[in-house]
Amino acid sequence: MMGRPRVVIVGAGFGGLACARKLAGKPVEVAVIDRNNYHLFTPLLYQVASSLLNPSDIAQPVRAIFRGKRNVRFVRGEVLGVDFERRTVRLEGGAEEPYDRLVLAVGSTTNFFGVSGAEEGALGLKDLGEALELRNHVLGVLERATQAQDAGERERLLTFVVVGGGPTGVEYAGALSELLKLVVPREYPELEGVSWRIVLVEGLPRLLNAFPEKLSEEARRELVKKGVEVRLGTRVTAAAEEHVQLDGAEPIGAGTLVWAAGVRPSGLAGTLDVGRSRSGRIEVDAALRVRRRDGVYAIGDVASFVQDEREVPMLSAPAMQQGRHAAANILRELAGERARRFRYRDKGSMATIGRNDAVAQVGRLQLTGFPGWVAWLVVHLYYLIGFRNRLVVLMGWAWNYVRLDRPVRIIARAGEGGGTREKARGP
Amino acid sequence: MMGRPRVVIVGAGFGGLACARKLAGKPVEVAVIDRNNYHLFTPLLYQVASSLLNPSDIAQPVRAIFRGKRNVRFVRGEVLGVDFERRTVRLEGGAEEPYDRLVLAVGSTTNFFGVSGAEEGALGLKDLGEALELRNHVLGVLERATQAQDAGERERLLTFVVVGGGPTGVEYAGALSELLKLVVPREYPELEGVSWRIVLVEGLPRLLNAFPEKLSEEARRELVKKGVEVRLGTRVTAAAEEHVQLDGAEPIGAGTLVWAAGVRPSGLAGTLDVGRSRSGRIEVDAALRVRRRDGVYAIGDVASFVQDEREVPMLSAPAMQQGRHAAANILRELAGERARRFRYRDKGSMATIGRNDAVAQVGRLQLTGFPGWVAWLVVHLYYLIGFRNRLVVLMGWAWNYVRLDRPVRIIARAGEGGGTREKARGP
Repeated sequence: MMGRPRVVIVGAGFGGLACARKLAGKPVEVAVIDRNNYHLFTPLLYQVASSLLNPSDIAQPVRAIFRGKRNVRFVRGEVLGVDFERRTVRLEGGAEEPYDRLVLAVGSTTNFFGVSGAEEGALGLKDLGEALELRNHVLGVLERATQAQDAGERERLLTFVVVGGGPTGVEYAGALSELLKLVVPREYPELEGVSWRIVLVEGLPRLLNAFPEKLSEEARRELVKKGVEVRLGTRVTAAAEEHVQLDGAEPIGAGTLVWAAGVRPSGLAGTLDVGRSRSGRIEVDAALRVRRRDGVYAIGDVASFVQDEREVPMLSAPAMQQGRHAAANILRELAGERARRFRYRDKGSMATIGRNDAVAQVGRLQLTGFPGWVAWLVVHLYYLIGFRNRLVVLMGWAWNYVRLDRPVRIIARAGEGGGTREKARGP
Repeated sequence: MMGRPRVVIVGAGFGGLACARKLAGKPVEVAVIDRNNYHLFTPLLYQVASSLLNPSDIAQPVRAIFRGKRNVRFVRGEVLGVDFERRTVRLEGGAEEPYDRLVLAVGSTTNFFGVSGAEEGALGLKDLGEALELRNHVLGVLERATQAQDAGERERLLTFVVVGGGPTGVEYAGALSELLKLVVPREYPELEGVSWRIVLVEGLPRLLNAFPEKLSEEARRELVKKGVEVRLGTRVTAAAEEHVQLDGAEPIGAGTLVWAAGVRPSGLAGTLDVGRSRSGRIEVDAALRVRRRDGVYAIGDVASFVQDEREVPMLSAPAMQQGRHAAANILRELAGERARRFRYRDKGSMATIGRNDAVAQVGRLQLTGFPGWVAWLVVHLYYLIGFRNRLVVLMGWAWNYVRLDRPVRIIARAGEGGGTREKARGP
């Protein structure tokens, strides 16, 4: 008997996962490759960074997702390259995965736009490691502020600059202000009477540029109410260890610089011999196939899919739609049919500004405040389905909603704590 | 008005915390110093290491514990030394904490007993960083085993050596066998038909040496039933990257070496100018006061308190009793009364061997199996009181009990994941 066609999916994000789910139980052998052993529900990452959720609340092992799906295999590894002639994916360590169809779904990474000092000094908010690092950092800054010898240093430590007025920056700034408001007065008596400062910096003239203007303004107003300074039409020009430089303003002394200004396609996209758009994304045809590369699809943030003369945005919704579409096209091709054109259906956008406050746009419907928050909650819980721990997440939310608490305020790090060091024994 | 007497407590473990709790609301100013911002419920650490609990389930911020207690202050920092003449504690970074009474409660750390290679190659299970490192390591080893090129390498990767037959070693070996039994057959189809191996090594002729002999034998029998190889009267003589050497036996190829063979007093104990017992613990008098050092107490693992011609063991129960006693003695002294002698009351010991199986000895009562497990559960939940998240812990247990699941199986690490690196910006 001939082996069944092999489909290799690189990346277990929203796109790759949607694709693999659609191929589960179909007459193909699927291998999902990711450097992490989990799928990450990135829309809630800012809640890990702001001490509200545990990592495992939003990270689900890929193997658990495909438990019982005998035609889907997980491979933990770092992809170094693709040999398009031999139809083989090369992994770190020398292993290879041959494919009949390849789906590139490697996603994106924080884009520092070459701002001097940013890559070294700023904290990202794009993966779980970054979120934990940011949580540890902010809690550490509060501790240091309680021990600061002079008022100027304390003020600097309690200044948080968030760069980027998209959903991530807006949501994190709102969550950070709630964390500080809830925790500082109750647990940091040393900081009584000392005020903190959160500055949200956005280069465009409004926040949430992808949203209707009314919602942008609503988000700005709500953040200001929460004590966030919103600076629109302003760019960060340099970041040093102790201060942040904005264009046309004096430097801001800051203990924390959070970089949520944008993303760029993951490193692998730049090393493959494929066509790329100006934004660095891999050019695909109307059916999501990589041009000039037989049997290769690209989806999600890493793919440059043009619709109505614009690239589809780097968001989870188009990635999931493309993942399912690529899977369907692969099955069509293998059945001797023709691949179909993809069309992205924008079902709306939403962003939380804080506890029981969000902006949401669904079709022509625009919601703000509590109704917006309920809409946000329903959608996010719906998409957490498949996460067995959504019940825990929901209970955790309810609990903390009632208690006004932020339970996960521990500064922890694997391999650190009691004076231990890195282990020689891998991995 | 004269300032109230200052009590400085170094260490927020069981001893330090019990002491500070007793002093809350009393006419003293208390400073609790710890390098971590949380108190750790170490008896459940092995459950974090075996993917059952999240770090925040067993780690509670010290500030949260003393919320509203206006006379207790938290200082996050590393203590470098004590100037007994000037009655001042020196912290890393140059800060100082003056005291009228000092309580040394710095606890203990993993003891590698100078075994060659152990400190570099073995994984400890004594603090949160070590537990997370061990969790990541074991999950990583399983992934590597699925990709191993030859059977010998796969066998080595799936061999786990646990050194130390005390409660930590026994509980972790049992929990690890359950993790492997639950997860491997369901989620690692690549390892179908491949067997894993857990070897528990103990130098003494029986497990759980502090327990009655009958319970030791019961624990051994139950572990063997769970597939754990128990080697009594055996010592590890050397550890290399790929194998472990036992005395009088051929080397065991192993991908994991867990070191739970014992603890020794924390580093600070060895650098202070105080009397020390042969085990390195600080010598104290009958009232828990450090000899020759006015106003200084030592409690818990770091203190050598001799009762019935033996040092009181390094366990949480005596540490808590001593913490409360030291607090009472400090209050007595400050009130012009005499400090009283301490006496440790052994209320029993218990250890879980797995889901619904434990051994417990309470006074003359000896419990095994399910009754033992219920006793264990009741006691541990009781001591988790003060942890607001005990409800979450309980629900998590119940949930996983029903689902036979291990939810926290993600390989995560602050500052790692998407190819980010360490940040220059401290802390």
